[in-house]
Amino acid sequence: MTDSAATAAADGEKSENTVAEEVSRVVESAKELQDSASALISRNACEEDALRQRVVSLDSTIRQIRSSVSSLVQHGNLDPKEAEKLEEELYRASNILSEGDAASFLPTKKSHGRFLSMFLGPINVRATRKDIKLKVKEEYNSFRDRTACLFLFFPTLLLVLRSWIWGGCFPALPVQLYQAWLLFLYTGLALRENILRVNGSDIRPWWIYHHYFAMAMALISLTWEIEREPDCAQKQKGVQLFLHWAIMQGVAMLLQNRYQRQRLYTRIALGKARRMDVVWGETAGVKGQLLLLAPILFVLQGFEAYVGMLLLKIAYVGVVSEWQVITCGILLIIMAFGNFANTVQTLVTKSRFKAKRKKTKSMAELNHESPS
Amino acid sequence: MTDSAATAAADGEKSENTVAEEVSRVVESAKELQDSASALISRNACEEDALRQRVVSLDSTIRQIRSSVSSLVQHGNLDPKEAEKLEEELYRASNILSEGDAASFLPTKKSHGRFLSMFLGPINVRATRKDIKLKVKEEYNSFRDRTACLFLFFPTLLLVLRSWIWGGCFPALPVQLYQAWLLFLYTGLALRENILRVNGSDIRPWWIYHHYFAMAMALISLTWEIEREPDCAQKQKGVQLFLHWAIMQGVAMLLQNRYQRQRLYTRIALGKARRMDVVWGETAGVKGQLLLLAPILFVLQGFEAYVGMLLLKIAYVGVVSEWQVITCGILLIIMAFGNFANTVQTLVTKSRFKAKRKKTKSMAELNHESPS
Repeated sequence: MTDSAATAAADGEKSENTVAEEVSRVVESAKELQDSASALISRNACEEDALRQRVVSLDSTIRQIRSSVSSLVQHGNLDPKEAEKLEEELYRASNILSEGDAASFLPTKKSHGRFLSMFLGPINVRATRKDIKLKVKEEYNSFRDRTACLFLFFPTLLLVLRSWIWGGCFPALPVQLYQAWLLFLYTGLALRENILRVNGSDIRPWWIYHHYFAMAMALISLTWEIEREPDCAQKQKGVQLFLHWAIMQGVAMLLQNRYQRQRLYTRIALGKARRMDVVWGETAGVKGQLLLLAPILFVLQGFEAYVGMLLLKIAYVGVVSEWQVITCGILLIIMAFGNFANTVQTLVTKSRFKAKRKKTKSMAELNHESPS
Repeated sequence: MTDSAATAAADGEKSENTVAEEVSRVVESAKELQDSASALISRNACEEDALRQRVVSLDSTIRQIRSSVSSLVQHGNLDPKEAEKLEEELYRASNILSEGDAASFLPTKKSHGRFLSMFLGPINVRATRKDIKLKVKEEYNSFRDRTACLFLFFPTLLLVLRSWIWGGCFPALPVQLYQAWLLFLYTGLALRENILRVNGSDIRPWWIYHHYFAMAMALISLTWEIEREPDCAQKQKGVQLFLHWAIMQGVAMLLQNRYQRQRLYTRIALGKARRMDVVWGETAGVKGQLLLLAPILFVLQGFEAYVGMLLLKIAYVGVVSEWQVITCGILLIIMAFGNFANTVQTLVTKSRFKAKRKKTKSMAELNHESPS
């Protein structure tokens, strides 16, 4: 055995022992880490449960006191001014609970719902950290901004190309690409709004249903044959009307987005809204802006119903008698009426709310009013 | 003043004071809760960070030792049998980390990806608790089971009705309903698989791309006009072939689901797989079952490519020359080749893995082999 061979053998022996030691040390550390992790997880779960119980009990106490205050006022046993002061205090307390760090320990009232569990399975989409919730909300707003621009751009482009290049007739592919985009857009919006709801947003259920209907309409319009020559101009009347309506919708969305953001920020500043609130669709408007927005919304809803009626008329007269035309017509009319009813309901809620404030009723009630 | 009026006034006075006290107590409690919540959250964050660092450093130590063991074996400084023992120990350690409670502190390597953020926004879909992860996995499996049955049922029903009731011609609506179902199904599967990936599943990226392609195909097939008389039998040849393929796909899915579950449970029992692993699509089979499954899969892939070619032929000959036919043909061929390549790759990985085991290489490597 040469010297170097002996050294190598010794090295090998040494390395083998060293490595074996390292390995057993690593296994020990892994077991230790497992123990610490499981201890940390179970301790956290205990502490969070305890805190959750305290939050829930305080939340119900606040409700009780609020109802006893209003019953005292009703029986004339409490000075209305004093009651207002107490209610503002109570509102502040419930705001601390629902807006602060304790909010993540409030139990969710809203379950995931069928739509989310159909697409995502049983995964939890409720953010525990407040900054993530806000990020989700902010991203939803900017998504809607981007969407509104495209909502305006695509149908305009199609209509312009139709008269400038396509000689008065839509080719099928670009229209169908637009319809496919609409389908994915509405699916995305419906998913995002369901997620916002799970995260404590007070979005009106109708606006989510509205997107389900819109999804159905986009899907149906995809199967709707784009008729070519002869008489394409007449046969494509429905598509054309639909695109006109989409442009108006885009304009309204842009206006709404701007006003709603302003309104949300104003309401947050006044302490009347929580950041997660979505003032979706036609429910918006700070005082003066509502004067501009409400008429636009009503005109839009009227036009929506008009397009629906025209589609039904086309089917009735027999120009295009496919089932898609009839179904889209009915869907548009349902959406128009739903939008109208919800806008009116919101306006009524607003004025009732103002009246209530004058009657020194709790301003916190807006948060507990569940739109049905 | 009567007695009763005086009592009522006294009561009112008393109630007012009591209520005021209760309100200020509630506000105090809310502030306290806010403080405890924020303290708990920040303390937890600290402790979790500390644990996370320990987990990450141990994880990298295990990797280092593993590579030094293999270099020692290569230089002949370590007895292969001894090395195997050490590697099994190391595997056990990394298994404790990745399977135990410490797993939730391992950093995610996989980001959410575009698909998820497009549909869901920036919400976190990573479950921290292990039982929820398992629930998601289990639900995904049972979703696939239900899906496979419907996948078999719908096209069979359509084909049976065609020959028994519809006199050899498909009406458009039922076929389009089926296509819409396919579109939502594939969207759901793609979303769920992306979520599984985020939660640490080792699903091959191809199977997710496969579902994107399938989504595109379902969408395109919706715009594909279902031709009626005359010659509907010839013009509907493509639809008919597609349905035949769907039935075979359904049978294969059912077989795969059964075998993959068995295989996953076997692998978990042998400590070779983690519970979150998805052995999706054509990559499955425990030894004997692979003999049955692999040929079925290859036949299916061949049939998929054949249907694709037939569609291209139909378009080339000019029977149905719509762009949808050509695009669907190309998509089917791409999917067939991708499926084939991935199945072969998996079989190769398997045999290489067996060879490695014989060469006393680490059996943990399977977990770190990233399928590309």
